[in-house]
Amino acid sequence: MPHALKLPAVWVPANTPFDAQGAPDAAAFLAHCKVLLDEGADGLAVFGTTSEANSLGLDERMALLEALVAGGIDPKRLMPGTGCCAIPDTVRLTRQAVKLGCAGVLMLPPFYYKGVSDDGVVDAFSRVIDEVAEEALKVFAYHIPPVAQVPVSLAALERLVAAYPKQVVGLKDSSGDWENTRAVIDAMPHLATFSGSEVFLLQNIRAGGAGCISATANVNVAGMRRVIDNEDGPQAEALQAEITTVRKAFEAVPMIPGLKAFLARKYGNPDWARPRPPLRPLDDALADGLVAVLGAIGFPVP
Amino acid sequence: MPHALKLPAVWVPANTPFDAQGAPDAAAFLAHCKVLLDEGADGLAVFGTTSEANSLGLDERMALLEALVAGGIDPKRLMPGTGCCAIPDTVRLTRQAVKLGCAGVLMLPPFYYKGVSDDGVVDAFSRVIDEVAEEALKVFAYHIPPVAQVPVSLAALERLVAAYPKQVVGLKDSSGDWENTRAVIDAMPHLATFSGSEVFLLQNIRAGGAGCISATANVNVAGMRRVIDNEDGPQAEALQAEITTVRKAFEAVPMIPGLKAFLARKYGNPDWARPRPPLRPLDDALADGLVAVLGAIGFPVP
Repeated sequence: MPHALKLPAVWVPANTPFDAQGAPDAAAFLAHCKVLLDEGADGLAVFGTTSEANSLGLDERMALLEALVAGGIDPKRLMPGTGCCAIPDTVRLTRQAVKLGCAGVLMLPPFYYKGVSDDGVVDAFSRVIDEVAEEALKVFAYHIPPVAQVPVSLAALERLVAAYPKQVVGLKDSSGDWENTRAVIDAMPHLATFSGSEVFLLQNIRAGGAGCISATANVNVAGMRRVIDNEDGPQAEALQAEITTVRKAFEAVPMIPGLKAFLARKYGNPDWARPRPPLRPLDDALADGLVAVLGAIGFPVP
Repeated sequence: MPHALKLPAVWVPANTPFDAQGAPDAAAFLAHCKVLLDEGADGLAVFGTTSEANSLGLDERMALLEALVAGGIDPKRLMPGTGCCAIPDTVRLTRQAVKLGCAGVLMLPPFYYKGVSDDGVVDAFSRVIDEVAEEALKVFAYHIPPVAQVPVSLAALERLVAAYPKQVVGLKDSSGDWENTRAVIDAMPHLATFSGSEVFLLQNIRAGGAGCISATANVNVAGMRRVIDNEDGPQAEALQAEITTVRKAFEAVPMIPGLKAFLARKYGNPDWARPRPPLRPLDDALADGLVAVLGAIGFPVP
């Protein structure tokens, strides 16, 4: 029996704003998260790659999550990223998420050492789950080989699901490889398997997947919702083509700075445009070009 | 005028032992560090890649460094690794090292995001140095593209040295590319440029480099010291060939587990053999084979 998170959904890896001093701006973050839910997001996969989570200190991540819940975000709408290089750091963040009642956590494998075995990845996830020791823990494994380099392979995931059927309940597949996503859905149809890009959204939900957790949901939740709501309708393919086109516009520039440049204009707050090093803000000319392209394809621009 | 760290030297990225519960064993770590200094190491680059530093929690790293100093290791012999993905975490570890009076810190660039620009790497190092704000801080940049994937290029290093001449004083080059090391030494002869492998030790010191910071120094400080002490003697090449052969034996197996298997035998402590996930212990058969190979080439084995 699929759990609630198995329903086709859009979860947003919410971008994290920084103030003029480079510190996380908790108020602007909370406001953005509320906008995303108002726009139709099913939930918030805060502290993902797009959120620059790995550029945030442990204390910053914990303070921001507290601030969201204190600010009125239902923890059942939160799936924070908690996977660090070091198991104790992952355990600490994961325990906090469980304690706050979050729907689940999105967990990277340890990503410093490269070329590690499936055995090593399984060991690492197992250690975290054992140390957290909570049945309420719901882990969504995060497979993003283009960035983490260390994969969560289908074979590793199958072993984890077999060992921890109550805790390992889903996957975010950011491999960009639809065949991998399909193989996971086919092998474990009860799992909540999200695509990491809305380019695969219609394919994902038609195959029995859980929807998408996508960077560009920061600016286009509404478009993704329309695809889900019209999955069986005559407009489905056209609606999918629309969100794919918007995605491609953001893929044509550095993605995270591009999203932040867009949000800076949307919210009338230039601080929003600033990522944290090692990322850099988008050039103004590139930001103007991005907005012009989006406007030309009929996307509502600020 | 070259500073003291510019003298040809062997610094050891000391392996980190874990107890039967998987926690760092501070007593065994201190004992190993003392052995290394007794064997002739000039200093200890604790919390390097070989040390599984990125598998240690922030609190664990800080507690272990405190334990070394409290246990009698001269902080002038310590160059802890402090580079994390997130600037606040790097700042926190770096401040502790400065406060304890360490000789320097070995600093990775932020390594989660891939394909970042030199500008982004320079931004990140600059932010850390500005936030730590201590003239006593001595940064050795850590260039290890095979693992971190994010390089510290010669161009980025030149910009950092120009901007922070008092703080950016050295490099550990673990690229495995001698031409890169030579280019850094030629461009900035006043810098303390260490090779990341003793395979390049004689070349390094003859070119004016600072020596090596090498994984296999955990088991072969004495051999490396002999090369340095005989740099100008008739035995130099033969001594270099000896340490290269030992290195190659360890390169033939997973390096960190191989070193830990060796140290477990040396210290008669099987717990030493255990790395932390995602790394796995060396198979017993492989460990036996490694020791047999080392014995056959005349290396003193436990």
